[in-house]
Amino acid sequence: MYAFDLDHICAQSGARAGTLTLSHGRVATPIFMPVGTQATVKALQPRDLVDIDAQIVLANTYHLMLRPGSQRIAAAGGLHRFMAWQRPILTDSGGFQVYSLAKIRKITDDGAVFASHIDGTRFELNAERAVALQEDFGSDILMAFDECPPATADSQHIARAIKRTTAWLDRCIAARKKADQCALYGIVQGGIDHALRSAAVSEICARDACEGFAIGGLSVGESCDQMWATCAHTAAQMPVGKARYLMGVGTPEDIVRCIGYGIDQFDCVMPSRNARHGIAFTHDGKLSIKNRRFFDDDGPLDPDCSCDVCLTFSRSYLRHLFVAGEMLAATLLTKHNLAFYLQLTKGARAAIVGDRYSDWAQTMLVRFASKRWAA
Amino acid sequence: MYAFDLDHICAQSGARAGTLTLSHGRVATPIFMPVGTQATVKALQPRDLVDIDAQIVLANTYHLMLRPGSQRIAAAGGLHRFMAWQRPILTDSGGFQVYSLAKIRKITDDGAVFASHIDGTRFELNAERAVALQEDFGSDILMAFDECPPATADSQHIARAIKRTTAWLDRCIAARKKADQCALYGIVQGGIDHALRSAAVSEICARDACEGFAIGGLSVGESCDQMWATCAHTAAQMPVGKARYLMGVGTPEDIVRCIGYGIDQFDCVMPSRNARHGIAFTHDGKLSIKNRRFFDDDGPLDPDCSCDVCLTFSRSYLRHLFVAGEMLAATLLTKHNLAFYLQLTKGARAAIVGDRYSDWAQTMLVRFASKRWAA
Repeated sequence: MYAFDLDHICAQSGARAGTLTLSHGRVATPIFMPVGTQATVKALQPRDLVDIDAQIVLANTYHLMLRPGSQRIAAAGGLHRFMAWQRPILTDSGGFQVYSLAKIRKITDDGAVFASHIDGTRFELNAERAVALQEDFGSDILMAFDECPPATADSQHIARAIKRTTAWLDRCIAARKKADQCALYGIVQGGIDHALRSAAVSEICARDACEGFAIGGLSVGESCDQMWATCAHTAAQMPVGKARYLMGVGTPEDIVRCIGYGIDQFDCVMPSRNARHGIAFTHDGKLSIKNRRFFDDDGPLDPDCSCDVCLTFSRSYLRHLFVAGEMLAATLLTKHNLAFYLQLTKGARAAIVGDRYSDWAQTMLVRFASKRWAA
Repeated sequence: MYAFDLDHICAQSGARAGTLTLSHGRVATPIFMPVGTQATVKALQPRDLVDIDAQIVLANTYHLMLRPGSQRIAAAGGLHRFMAWQRPILTDSGGFQVYSLAKIRKITDDGAVFASHIDGTRFELNAERAVALQEDFGSDILMAFDECPPATADSQHIARAIKRTTAWLDRCIAARKKADQCALYGIVQGGIDHALRSAAVSEICARDACEGFAIGGLSVGESCDQMWATCAHTAAQMPVGKARYLMGVGTPEDIVRCIGYGIDQFDCVMPSRNARHGIAFTHDGKLSIKNRRFFDDDGPLDPDCSCDVCLTFSRSYLRHLFVAGEMLAATLLTKHNLAFYLQLTKGARAAIVGDRYSDWAQTMLVRFASKRWAA
């Protein structure tokens, strides 16, 4: 089951409000999707995610194929049941992690052969296998198997990656056995070269069998300006009627800007990973909870946040937990940071529907940049 | 505010069912008190404790006086508000940790001078200070400052510890400024020497100003048989009308046995510490969740447990989390283990009220010893 309904396009900007209808529920877009790499959003219980109104989470095919394996997850009744998460799940194809995490890998036109980063076990991953794994998981949205070149790649390398990604997308489409139950998104590569991005869009987005499309290969080392410009250029050429997912992005500023360019879905480890290092996102920018200034600060992490961490605990207590090495610090900061991101995409949607997205975005960007908490 | 009402004494045993009325609420005894050393029960949010019906938690004065300090906690509105826990709190006096954790310590008849195990800062702790710290925290139950000799101590050392502990108790009583708001428990020392225990009871329990009494100095290295015999001997001589707290004990078997000897309150790090090492307590004994046999076990951790971990997650998933190094494993196992202990004391109370505690205890002890999960 899949539908993407475009509810509204902001009259002030290119920002879009939509509704995804998936096998496990509906998702109002634009939306941030918390990352649950190993079948858990690190440090949170599923109900914490429900509290902060997470509507869809991401899980990583590479990690789950290695451990516990797709057969185990299928036998357990699928990923939703395994991790006790009833709402939608999007899984990546595993390609990105093969390039970034696996050891001793060999990439050919067929796909990848690699050694597990955990114990060296040999695995194969290609278009057909990536689809089969994700269908075994029972994901609501499957990502096509793609090649993601590093930011330093030359045009020739990027052009070859687009060609391979397109060929692999056709194989992914052909390999689908549960197209009635889950969506498949094709991925537009092309680095920061606008011509190559245009070429990739014309190939990938011509595949009507794809329910949605993603922009991959950004946030891999290029500058913010390059990323924003490439996102804006690429999104503008993508089909209006299908969902657009910007993979692995980004900071609150990135998200506010890229919604303005017409992006509907985001994922990033930034809020959860930063939380485990004691960094909280607030309306006034990032703060480091271990800073001595918070020792006796009995106020909430972010006075403008309505999450239960901000309603319940003080900066002083959160600092104490972090300094004392208590894992509850990671749990509470993760919950707040993800709540902050989800409030951000919810706020964006309200502004879009009210045809005032540009004004709202400008206000948010000014506050984020206030550097109130700079050391 | 403090009252201890003895609701029932089991006709089959010496086991007691009572009700503690404290400033922050009522507690049905016998009760297990989860340990929240640094103002957090490790890995759990306060609401997790409410879910499993934790009625009172313990916090450690030694740790909190070092970090963040009693003045900070008092300024934050007390320990309840600081850690967002609305129900009762019992704090220890800090003495035990000074002996076991602090470096470069000097113990005299006045008290202890020691260096923090965190950064070497010099601290002093004595009877008056222990009471002042705990009153600053706003604890519901304060423990008197005591000397706890090691299991290897000779009779002379133990006798001196009893003398000091008695003198310190009188100083604690004299130092109380908030006796209307919080209870003070005296501590019976005496090692495993029954005569010394009797002597200590006759001194300590003669202090009517104490609202309750604890048995300290057990579970410090003696055998199970020695601990059980000493507990039975000591409890039998303690005043019937006041609560009896066995400090730092123990296994599910210890708790079932010692309730039978007339103990009302327990605390121990065992359920929470074991959880972080992947050990779950079940009605059929302990199991190690990392065992390969649980790889494809889709059943609950303990089929006879009603906690939400057992109702929601499988052994296979919990094993996956633990093996993958996900901190959610520690959270969920901690929640289950504490739920198991709390179900145990709740079950004990029901059996006491039904005058069938000996039968119930025998049934539980046989199941615990089944070694069903032995490797």
